[in-house]
Amino acid sequence: MTHKSEKNWSGDPAELLRAGEGFVLSGVDPDETPGYSEGKDAAAEDLAIGVDDLDELQERLFAQSRTDASDASVLLLLQAMDSAGKGGVIRHVVGSVDPQGVMLTAFKKPTPEELEHDFLWRVQKHAPQPGYIGVFDRSQYEDVLIGKVRSLAPAEEIERRYDAINVFEKQLTDAGTRIVKVMLHISYAEQGERLMERLDRPDKHWKYNPGDIDERARWPHYMDAYQTVFERTSTDHAPWFVVPANRKWYSRLAVQQLLLGALREIDPQWPSATFDVAAEKKRLAAT
Amino acid sequence: MTHKSEKNWSGDPAELLRAGEGFVLSGVDPDETPGYSEGKDAAAEDLAIGVDDLDELQERLFAQSRTDASDASVLLLLQAMDSAGKGGVIRHVVGSVDPQGVMLTAFKKPTPEELEHDFLWRVQKHAPQPGYIGVFDRSQYEDVLIGKVRSLAPAEEIERRYDAINVFEKQLTDAGTRIVKVMLHISYAEQGERLMERLDRPDKHWKYNPGDIDERARWPHYMDAYQTVFERTSTDHAPWFVVPANRKWYSRLAVQQLLLGALREIDPQWPSATFDVAAEKKRLAAT
Repeated sequence: MTHKSEKNWSGDPAELLRAGEGFVLSGVDPDETPGYSEGKDAAAEDLAIGVDDLDELQERLFAQSRTDASDASVLLLLQAMDSAGKGGVIRHVVGSVDPQGVMLTAFKKPTPEELEHDFLWRVQKHAPQPGYIGVFDRSQYEDVLIGKVRSLAPAEEIERRYDAINVFEKQLTDAGTRIVKVMLHISYAEQGERLMERLDRPDKHWKYNPGDIDERARWPHYMDAYQTVFERTSTDHAPWFVVPANRKWYSRLAVQQLLLGALREIDPQWPSATFDVAAEKKRLAAT
Repeated sequence: MTHKSEKNWSGDPAELLRAGEGFVLSGVDPDETPGYSEGKDAAAEDLAIGVDDLDELQERLFAQSRTDASDASVLLLLQAMDSAGKGGVIRHVVGSVDPQGVMLTAFKKPTPEELEHDFLWRVQKHAPQPGYIGVFDRSQYEDVLIGKVRSLAPAEEIERRYDAINVFEKQLTDAGTRIVKVMLHISYAEQGERLMERLDRPDKHWKYNPGDIDERARWPHYMDAYQTVFERTSTDHAPWFVVPANRKWYSRLAVQQLLLGALREIDPQWPSATFDVAAEKKRLAAT
């Protein structure tokens, strides 16, 4: 079945962007737009069409969870280097969804209380409830990315975490959550330009942090850490998708399609009434 | 100063809709559109213009809180009879705002744990953090509305709650939160039609609950309870606004204007850089 918002795609983004067996991050060109042959203008139109689809699917997912025994939910997990466009994806893709059906969590530097617990402690609490689209802006993967690059934990502990993450994600999927893990992939040069724009514009200064350049200096180490993440945690139950993100219009469109794909696989249905509709109409008419 | 989204308003909604001294709920006609002389089409255009204003003001509010000592935030609190359009306001007004700057809480029937605490316990935890627009879908007022109408607490306890709410809201405003309390006001007849529509449409059945008619039977008691709420808790620091809501396009537009008004009174500014911009540009250029 082809949907209207997919008409300009030559293939399924969930196949084209998946970090499967033998995936090599350095082989991905952040300038490319895999599967999508049109440009920025068509992409804006397709994104708008996708919004309507997303709207109905989300409402069905929510409705289904209210009255049925369905435990289905979606978790969109976003990881990226600074300025790769997580915020824009949240604003333009997640932001198009009814906020009543979204549970968004931004994971910052862990608090002292969080550091006293296992690294998954703070994450588990924010798993989406049935019927919701959960969104993680950063996630448990920070603990094997910055955690590894900056040696914030011993090497054996970092090692342990990949398996712990896989077990955790398996529990989530077994409980009905469909997990979509996305890395927005920009180039080193593109990041340089975006950070410079933040420095050039006074209304963007608040987004800039001198520490951004310290992390930028570790770029190759981060790319290695991401490669390891994909090798260790891109599983059948919770695969990774690497989305080229030098063109913002493409990355937003692609993430929207990945989210739509997850919802279509759930295929949520309007629940049947749990009451006698005719009887209720009579009761209401009498008021 | 007049803003573009206000061009079709003959007065300030914050003045026109305020439940001030001597306010009488039964004197409000839910069909009216106070201060707005245009119809549905113009309202859709004005709402879209307002979205852009809201967007910039919200981002400034958020930005300001990240680096300055500003503790400013907004709390939009929504109360209404069933089907009055809270969901639509959240979808179309709140939903137009970047989800990264919104903290939405829907208060349901209290859990056993919540009932073990004072009625404000669960509410206090969801007060918006600095920089955020908090939204309460139902609120502490349930405890003096359904709480009173259905005698869920002794009369003296209900009495105590009005003052407790005023103290609580004063603490919030003193801490930097601007509170906008909105009651969406539909007529009894309009509610009857909307509930019937839910019964007529299988994709709306999930929104219907037989208990809705039980509450509808208590309509006059609810109106009395609201009247008391306005008399006891429409304060200078946290006034109530009663928004006629038989016309959805009006209530959405009016709530958007009330939210815009609160943000404009805060008048958030882009914060100055907390770093040496020229030095950072040099550092970045060297990478």
